[in-house]
Amino acid sequence: MATDGVKKMSVTTVTDGRRVRGELSRQAVMRSAVDLASVGGLDGLSIGGLASEVSMSKSGIAGLFGSKEDLQLAVIAAAADIFQERVIVPALKAPAGLERLRALVDAWIEYSESRVFAGGCFFAAAAAEYRARPGTVRDAVAVQMRRWNAFMAEAVSRAVATGELPSDTDPIQLAFEITAMFDAANDASLLHDSAAPYARARTAIDSLLARS
Amino acid sequence: MATDGVKKMSVTTVTDGRRVRGELSRQAVMRSAVDLASVGGLDGLSIGGLASEVSMSKSGIAGLFGSKEDLQLAVIAAAADIFQERVIVPALKAPAGLERLRALVDAWIEYSESRVFAGGCFFAAAAAEYRARPGTVRDAVAVQMRRWNAFMAEAVSRAVATGELPSDTDPIQLAFEITAMFDAANDASLLHDSAAPYARARTAIDSLLARS
Repeated sequence: MATDGVKKMSVTTVTDGRRVRGELSRQAVMRSAVDLASVGGLDGLSIGGLASEVSMSKSGIAGLFGSKEDLQLAVIAAAADIFQERVIVPALKAPAGLERLRALVDAWIEYSESRVFAGGCFFAAAAAEYRARPGTVRDAVAVQMRRWNAFMAEAVSRAVATGELPSDTDPIQLAFEITAMFDAANDASLLHDSAAPYARARTAIDSLLARS
Repeated sequence: MATDGVKKMSVTTVTDGRRVRGELSRQAVMRSAVDLASVGGLDGLSIGGLASEVSMSKSGIAGLFGSKEDLQLAVIAAAADIFQERVIVPALKAPAGLERLRALVDAWIEYSESRVFAGGCFFAAAAAEYRARPGTVRDAVAVQMRRWNAFMAEAVSRAVATGELPSDTDPIQLAFEITAMFDAANDASLLHDSAAPYARARTAIDSLLARS
């Protein structure tokens, strides 16, 4: 019985170990894929290019991710996880209302300005690359953008509910205006190698929140 | 004398005719190059791809435009001419002041929404493609963007000078905020196949101009 138990355990451990190694390997390769895409674009991703980047065989990469499109979709999901961790999670620590809205502004600007992704906001880059190219990849980017816009509008709504923003505030409109400032700052800071656009965006958002 | 005169004239005519045909040909090829770049990106442009698009030899295209980078720079200049014609010239017909600023808003939204370029605003697309890639192409796009921002700030200044906007308006800040709305509308309308973002941008700009 004891021996059987040990045998069983060690078989289980080996199996789990393999599973864990497979998962770690997929994660490590995924992080490389996200980095590659953030610099060279989602369209620039290829099974072959990623294979040579991480010194694996093309069939090994294909085994982990499938087709190029599967890889692109996995990269978008992984980037969304990173965005969640860097922007959403920290902001959710602040109480719902104006404080959380301001925490979201701080977290987003920090996320863009600190270049969590080499090419600035991953989703601004992916949307710019695919917005005029209908298909599965564009749809996946659009889903993320709609989630983000809905999250921002919800954060505005909560600040209306607490009475910190006026009751006639249109949450979707104000979320549109705030995220427009985020994107303008991200884009201009990259194009002109300057941090000044972030200060412009903060000034604009402060006015929007004071006016609303 | 009469015969010599006729001969001279006809030689001159042939020479000018060739020049005119050369110029027309360059213009026609350039318009194809701009269209190609507006869909497939500036990086997707190639001497060979353009040659097959317009049924010319690669050496013929290279003779007209030089290297790929020369072609990209010529395309940026041609796109700037189209922008000038579609946005700047119509707006300059309005008297300097708030009326011209509103004419600029109308002209820009019409330029983006009517898809003068298949991929929406040419410069938004070019900036998104090259902003994280330092070099001559990015510099050329950045020059166009700086000109456009300066033009917008000047239009704001004129509306301050006429007293239609308050004297404490920061023209560069207000120009940043207005163009942020343009770009947000352009980007979201492409990503979500929707005209609604243009209405959001108009609402936002109306508030900005009423508040200022």
